Amino acid sequence: MSSLSLSSFSFEDIPTSDVDAAEALYGGLAQDVRDLNDVSIRTRVDADDVARARALVQEATALLAADALEGPAGIHFNAEGRSWNWGNAVVGVRNAVAPPVELEWADDGTVGSTLTLGVPYEGPPGSVHGGVSAMVLDHLMGETASERHTRVVVTGTLTLRYVQPLPLGPIKMAAKITEQSGRKVTVTAWIAADVEGATPSVEASGLFITPRWAQEPDTPSGIGSLD
Amino acid sequence: MSSLSLSSFSFEDIPTSDVDAAEALYGGLAQDVRDLNDVSIRTRVDADDVARARALVQEATALLAADALEGPAGIHFNAEGRSWNWGNAVVGVRNAVAPPVELEWADDGTVGSTLTLGVPYEGPPGSVHGGVSAMVLDHLMGETASERHTRVVVTGTLTLRYVQPLPLGPIKMAAKITEQSGRKVTVTAWIAADVEGATPSVEASGLFITPRWAQEPDTPSGIGSLD
Repeated sequence: MSSLSLSSFSFEDIPTSDVDAAEALYGGLAQDVRDLNDVSIRTRVDADDVARARALVQEATALLAADALEGPAGIHFNAEGRSWNWGNAVVGVRNAVAPPVELEWADDGTVGSTLTLGVPYEGPPGSVHGGVSAMVLDHLMGETASERHTRVVVTGTLTLRYVQPLPLGPIKMAAKITEQSGRKVTVTAWIAADVEGATPSVEASGLFITPRWAQEPDTPSGIGSLD
Repeated sequence: MSSLSLSSFSFEDIPTSDVDAAEALYGGLAQDVRDLNDVSIRTRVDADDVARARALVQEATALLAADALEGPAGIHFNAEGRSWNWGNAVVGVRNAVAPPVELEWADDGTVGSTLTLGVPYEGPPGSVHGGVSAMVLDHLMGETASERHTRVVVTGTLTLRYVQPLPLGPIKMAAKITEQSGRKVTVTAWIAADVEGATPSVEASGLFITPRWAQEPDTPSGIGSLD
């Protein structure tokens, strides 16, 4: 069984400018693959064209696999306090399965995000899958509990109340800390359509916990939520 | 704001054999795109090879976009009781963002699934994102509440308790109905590593509800959970 500890994070002796350049290079690829994910669901082309598209996709995959990590992307940090989790299922900029969510920290401690959840995130017809709402809220709330990555937290419990369907398209969500005591932080959050007058589709409350090992002074900075 | 009703489902006058053939054709494409999603996170090839791969991906996307639905995939059914939701974020066989989860109904009412959650589903280093566990459990539990698609249900509330990290790789999960009363069904579930001796990583409990409109006698059969 896997467990997490300080050694779960990889120190990389790379300047931030190089990290940013690699993120832009491979992030561009992921954006193209997101477009492919979307159209693969919607396409109605015939079997011959599907075969041609598959051949192209397989050629791209082989090209990229010629030199690739064996395992997952992990979480890395450098000496300048930059950390990156490019494979993360919610925020990973190199992960075409991730929307990816981008977070905005407000001065009052609220953390918000606006994003588009399109065709690949469907559950009920025309609506966002309830599990997708749970997924992005979990991540947002964990990041909120980390207080701008000043502490490492993991999710303890998460409760979601589904109020009404969330239409596919532009979405907004926000979270804030409502209580904290010792290693425990309570966060509440909501997600809604990003249109005027929209009321929350899902409301959430969660308890986040700082693991004992993450209280050690040599915990790398900038890690934040371990979602 | 979107809402759901009987008209959310599209009747298609297509024999099941044609549905199966289309599912196999486009499902094969999605499987190739899943491989591309995975390697796009792991690749270390240089900028020239990234550019070549992007050109191939863009060519495939353009080919598939030449004839494509404008909107999301939706939920469809035919006169033979076959229903399909190919774009679903969790089980959609045409959706490369979906693992996709496949469900197994046991005689005792338990619904289970074994699946692989690989590189694109990472959260903590080497572990499944907590939000991904929430997402797949939500779907499994909704399907369980639907009692083999004999009723339509939506998620009311969902509570998750995170016990320990869930390593990326082979996963198992199971759900069962523990209580029902009128239009309300309570389901409990767990998810764990699919290795001998593994104990649950996440435990869940949820309340699922049959909407009033879905009690009408002309509700199409075979729809099940509206996740």
